[in-house]
Amino acid sequence: MKTLLDVVRDCDNFPYAEDTDQVYEQLRSSLWKFYLPEDPRPHGLMVDSVVEKMPWTSNFRVIRKPIKEVHLIQPEGPNWQEKCTQIIEQQVELAREKGVFPALGKTRHEIFPIVGANFSVGIDRSAFSMLGSIGRGVHMTVYTRTESGLKFWIPQRNFNKAYGGLLDNTVAGGMALGEKPLECLVREAEEEAGMSEELIRENARAVGTVTWMSVSDERARGQAGLINPGVLYVYDLEVGPEVVFKVVDDDVYAFHLMGTEEVKRAMLEGRFKPASASVLVDFFVRHGIVTAEEEEDYTEIVSRLHRKLPLPTSSQP
Amino acid sequence: MKTLLDVVRDCDNFPYAEDTDQVYEQLRSSLWKFYLPEDPRPHGLMVDSVVEKMPWTSNFRVIRKPIKEVHLIQPEGPNWQEKCTQIIEQQVELAREKGVFPALGKTRHEIFPIVGANFSVGIDRSAFSMLGSIGRGVHMTVYTRTESGLKFWIPQRNFNKAYGGLLDNTVAGGMALGEKPLECLVREAEEEAGMSEELIRENARAVGTVTWMSVSDERARGQAGLINPGVLYVYDLEVGPEVVFKVVDDDVYAFHLMGTEEVKRAMLEGRFKPASASVLVDFFVRHGIVTAEEEEDYTEIVSRLHRKLPLPTSSQP
Repeated sequence: MKTLLDVVRDCDNFPYAEDTDQVYEQLRSSLWKFYLPEDPRPHGLMVDSVVEKMPWTSNFRVIRKPIKEVHLIQPEGPNWQEKCTQIIEQQVELAREKGVFPALGKTRHEIFPIVGANFSVGIDRSAFSMLGSIGRGVHMTVYTRTESGLKFWIPQRNFNKAYGGLLDNTVAGGMALGEKPLECLVREAEEEAGMSEELIRENARAVGTVTWMSVSDERARGQAGLINPGVLYVYDLEVGPEVVFKVVDDDVYAFHLMGTEEVKRAMLEGRFKPASASVLVDFFVRHGIVTAEEEEDYTEIVSRLHRKLPLPTSSQP
Repeated sequence: MKTLLDVVRDCDNFPYAEDTDQVYEQLRSSLWKFYLPEDPRPHGLMVDSVVEKMPWTSNFRVIRKPIKEVHLIQPEGPNWQEKCTQIIEQQVELAREKGVFPALGKTRHEIFPIVGANFSVGIDRSAFSMLGSIGRGVHMTVYTRTESGLKFWIPQRNFNKAYGGLLDNTVAGGMALGEKPLECLVREAEEEAGMSEELIRENARAVGTVTWMSVSDERARGQAGLINPGVLYVYDLEVGPEVVFKVVDDDVYAFHLMGTEEVKRAMLEGRFKPASASVLVDFFVRHGIVTAEEEEDYTEIVSRLHRKLPLPTSSQP
């Protein structure tokens, strides 16, 4: 049986400098930092197997020593910022044509932003994790109070999806380029759970972020071994017993109404998508369901739920 | 004017490996790791000015190379664990007699635990920060709902104390050796604010931890430049408008009832004790008063409020 700390570590599984200077340093120095033009801050952490196989065009500069870096070269002209998304797309398309990455699927026509960039730039969802940039999304936990304690509306993911069959948060989705967290939540809550914009804007409560750094495995159904730093904007929504969730979307197989102990057991048995389990652990901490008295890893769990990422999360002032 | 991120950084001011590998590494390697017997994990981070001036007795082994370490040598006999607190006390007393640390005050007769140790061991509050161990306490924010929004019961610290005259959380105090968080909260709430045990046990809600690593400055009225890692167990308590706080203790100069904007302005003007400001920023995040839409440093702030400490926070399994 897992512990709650194991559950959080399943999502946040990249080593910490604070724990093991040496392992952390080895892993960090094995990664390639990805840079955008006119910005000294890295925006991605790419692995050898991506950088070495990628058929780099002259739009990129690959530096091997003394530090491993990949730079998108500043395009010509005054509005060069607008060309960057297209340049990245062309690069991914070339790799797709050459078939160098078997796990790289078709274009999803959904552009995810490069978080923290000083201008609007993104990359198609299909290739996003190859860049090792910060993935950003929203998660909302919907719960109701009953005589036997809190109950949670927990969807089970459809079996044809990544993390198929696993449990999830009531509403969960990735933020599109240019989208703000609440705006994204309103869209996803309607698409995935048929909830009205009014209900969300009036009753959903922003309660912080959950952040992590993970190394991808086979459950994500893409290439394994990629670096995935993540930020989730977290919301709570309490509803009355009259609210019942039904499947309105292909992403969800079924909605379950689960009590606190049932959710905890499912987490410890690994039946949740890892990031979704972390968001629920954070809920349990904030609502006093998990306490320092009963959970000896309490402080460590809370810290790991809010990892400081090694890439910028906001644009430069 | 400060930003909210500046407020959090005022408390959590030690560099991060994620930001500046080099500065972090320099600072980390300048520190001496403090070890207890039969435990491979460090429990303190001491600075040169303490280790070099300390008149070490033969109860300690000081290793200069290749890594700077101070070890408490395992005492003779079967119950050696019980002798460790006394050995530390004798060492501090010798330093006090010789007058090598002008900022080291009189014995406070209040033993703070060495957090994460595998047995019960502590050090007098007066010398605690010289060891660079994790300081541990509880903070509770008491608030009430009014027609004009939330109001907070904010004490102002007495002028003869460390951080004299600065604003604080409603209840705040350090955990004694062997004390559990809720037990400590009950004691402090009664001592500092005259609140009943029943009120605390029934209504205070555990909501997580706030953690940081700071380098001490003159405001703490002790030696400056020491390493202070900290863990606060955080609680929220909502009370009705009939509850009025009055000074019952020498530590508090006055209680103020302050609105959200008033608290925020006081934080930005540096009128709060740094750790107390961080706990209130965490409250503002958890209650949706500060949101990602309005605060561009949102993710960074949330991560820094929950720093992962480079020392263990629980005993070894």
